[in-house]
Amino acid sequence: MARRLNLEDSGFDAAFDALLTMKREVSQDVADVVAEIIADVQARGDAALIDYTKKFDRLDLGQAGLAVTAGEIDAAMGKVDAETLDALKLAHDRIQSHHARQMPKDDFYEDALGVGLGSRWTAIEAVGLYVPGGLASYPSSVLMNAVPAQVAGVERIVMAVPCPDGELNPLVLVAAKLAGVSEIYRIGGAQAVAALAFGTETIAPVAKIVGPGNAYVAAAKKQVFGTVGIDMIAGPSEVLVLADENNNADWIAADLLAQAEHDAAAQSILITDRAEFADAVEAAVENQLKTLSRAGIAGASWRDYGATIIVPGFADAMPLVNRLAPEHLELAVDDPDALLPLVRNAGAIFIGRHTPEVIGDYVGGSNHVLPTARSARFSSGLSVLDYVKRSSVLRLDADQLAKLGPAAVALAKAEGLDAHARSVAIRMNR
Amino acid sequence: MARRLNLEDSGFDAAFDALLTMKREVSQDVADVVAEIIADVQARGDAALIDYTKKFDRLDLGQAGLAVTAGEIDAAMGKVDAETLDALKLAHDRIQSHHARQMPKDDFYEDALGVGLGSRWTAIEAVGLYVPGGLASYPSSVLMNAVPAQVAGVERIVMAVPCPDGELNPLVLVAAKLAGVSEIYRIGGAQAVAALAFGTETIAPVAKIVGPGNAYVAAAKKQVFGTVGIDMIAGPSEVLVLADENNNADWIAADLLAQAEHDAAAQSILITDRAEFADAVEAAVENQLKTLSRAGIAGASWRDYGATIIVPGFADAMPLVNRLAPEHLELAVDDPDALLPLVRNAGAIFIGRHTPEVIGDYVGGSNHVLPTARSARFSSGLSVLDYVKRSSVLRLDADQLAKLGPAAVALAKAEGLDAHARSVAIRMNR
Repeated sequence: MARRLNLEDSGFDAAFDALLTMKREVSQDVADVVAEIIADVQARGDAALIDYTKKFDRLDLGQAGLAVTAGEIDAAMGKVDAETLDALKLAHDRIQSHHARQMPKDDFYEDALGVGLGSRWTAIEAVGLYVPGGLASYPSSVLMNAVPAQVAGVERIVMAVPCPDGELNPLVLVAAKLAGVSEIYRIGGAQAVAALAFGTETIAPVAKIVGPGNAYVAAAKKQVFGTVGIDMIAGPSEVLVLADENNNADWIAADLLAQAEHDAAAQSILITDRAEFADAVEAAVENQLKTLSRAGIAGASWRDYGATIIVPGFADAMPLVNRLAPEHLELAVDDPDALLPLVRNAGAIFIGRHTPEVIGDYVGGSNHVLPTARSARFSSGLSVLDYVKRSSVLRLDADQLAKLGPAAVALAKAEGLDAHARSVAIRMNR
Repeated sequence: MARRLNLEDSGFDAAFDALLTMKREVSQDVADVVAEIIADVQARGDAALIDYTKKFDRLDLGQAGLAVTAGEIDAAMGKVDAETLDALKLAHDRIQSHHARQMPKDDFYEDALGVGLGSRWTAIEAVGLYVPGGLASYPSSVLMNAVPAQVAGVERIVMAVPCPDGELNPLVLVAAKLAGVSEIYRIGGAQAVAALAFGTETIAPVAKIVGPGNAYVAAAKKQVFGTVGIDMIAGPSEVLVLADENNNADWIAADLLAQAEHDAAAQSILITDRAEFADAVEAAVENQLKTLSRAGIAGASWRDYGATIIVPGFADAMPLVNRLAPEHLELAVDDPDALLPLVRNAGAIFIGRHTPEVIGDYVGGSNHVLPTARSARFSSGLSVLDYVKRSSVLRLDADQLAKLGPAAVALAKAEGLDAHARSVAIRMNR
């Protein structure tokens, strides 16, 4: 049973603070091992990849080949049933058309002085996409990471996916093909991250690495940051459901469990204005757990990290929502539009009783890579913006330099930077 | 004398690779000391800040006060001469009006199925701005970091600035006032970063920390990342100047030295199509060094990291530009507009002979916080986007759920996530 909090109880503040600061991840210190692997891949290239893959994935890349071939990808297409393939295509197309709207526009203009200013956006040239192997090898995740890169115009989208015992999920290959992935390598762990960052004989280096992974992958991404860009380091998934008593308790329970089944460290929280409705949802959770394939994981998550919070009214809930800054927020109330403007911190918002968060995981069109662990206070979900960068552009002629130069010289002198002052003044003395 | 490379020499590739991979920073390992300081500030709050400030800055905060008062800020206004104050105001206003154009717009729409999708941008609620103390305490840097936050609508902009021996640059206070900084604390180092991230009795925590600092500040920012957001970790500054022989060699030399005077680890590179022009610039650099107040720093930078590169024509230079991915790029050639579309990787681009990079440092209006160390391959200069975040919004009714639901269920089942499938299916069976 999840913990119960009530905003009107005297102990609420302490209990809510405890919920906010709860550590849900045991951080493994693998930095030293990872540093060794990275140095070895830098020194020995492909040979190191072959050795680590034999050791960690029990796969002989000398036989299997480092790169997945076009023939293998075509064969994977044949292994996927028509319904799943259609669903993947629908997801791809919806993600693509939504993300196309995110493409930033160049902006060039002249100001009142005649100074030319501009912002020029260009795609990153090459991106590495890490895809976990085995059970956590999700085709939806391939789409969510690769399609925004495809939309941005990234020329090389390079996938690394470990194949434990040689196994590779055909759905992952199909998703990669749909999303325009240009190269796929059968490598994982810190060695894959090192290969993407520094390159080997076979793999040309990329400029940025994205995608989820285990503690070794996360540590490796942190260590190569600077040499390449990285995306956020994702924590366990979370949902916060605001629901009134007019909901079907079973629907809400299903949403809480959908999040909980991801990971024993996932977190599902219900905020409602009726204790009786919270009771009903809790009962529905227990009931549904009986028939769930991942009941062990989902049950542990709900027991250890789940919560129901009772508030007098939903307006009272909004400060709690913003402090929790959830990855996913469902507004399953009569008038969600009254609450929406009050949401300040949330990765993704799901409006109304017929928008379960799971739609956003797959086919809504928005991205499912979202800020966890309260980082929605300062960061956003994955988007096309993560695959482009902006150069600012400035253009003056002698006239504009004459107008702006004296102020630049004054500030340079005030900062004690004489060469700065000279670089402007020398152009004004003619 | 800086090194000379020629694209047509047989050894060019190796020499250029060496230039690309040159390490300009000795990274100090201060992680353990910083971790101790952070833990201490978390445990003891203000008392720890007082102790560290006494130790590192020789300042008694018990007497001086942790917060800078409104009276002190007004007094600082009186200490700044009119010319400098006007220059700061001009810089502020130009930065503000340029950055106002960067504000992203919300986007809500219904697709062909009637699904509501949206992107909703909100400002980060509170941001910490670290400002180095002593000599490197630049008012222009305060403007560049704080004005985009002001434009974004950040409610709390909290500045931390160390005051060694109690000294505080009045220009920094004036810049802070212009830029709408709401609170200023007399603290620095890892202890300031910890206070901003976790809060103390006096200082409420922020959600993101930006601004340059020494090795301790950089290490502290890395360690608190996750609890709060951070900006990029900036390396030594760089300029790449493309200049033909129709330039005044003195102007170009002045630009190279303006960058070099920042730091002995700064880097200035000239690419030109005439060896004779490179000779002339080199001679001008040596000549100007004789009369430069920071000749020691600038000379060391030019000698150790400077370079001139000779190319047959400027079209040949563009692949080199994009591999170098410079923080600052000057296009001082007859037809810069012919080269501009070929620039893929650069933090900021300065067009023509009358746009020295220094204009962008102060009064151009664009930001001077830019990606260093080749990170323009994957990242952008500071902008309003660094102070806002996006929530995605999704809205379905029963009709749209009926249309998208089956694909979501198919994908959830293919991924082995039964609770996901149930959360959608349970809403379709009614």
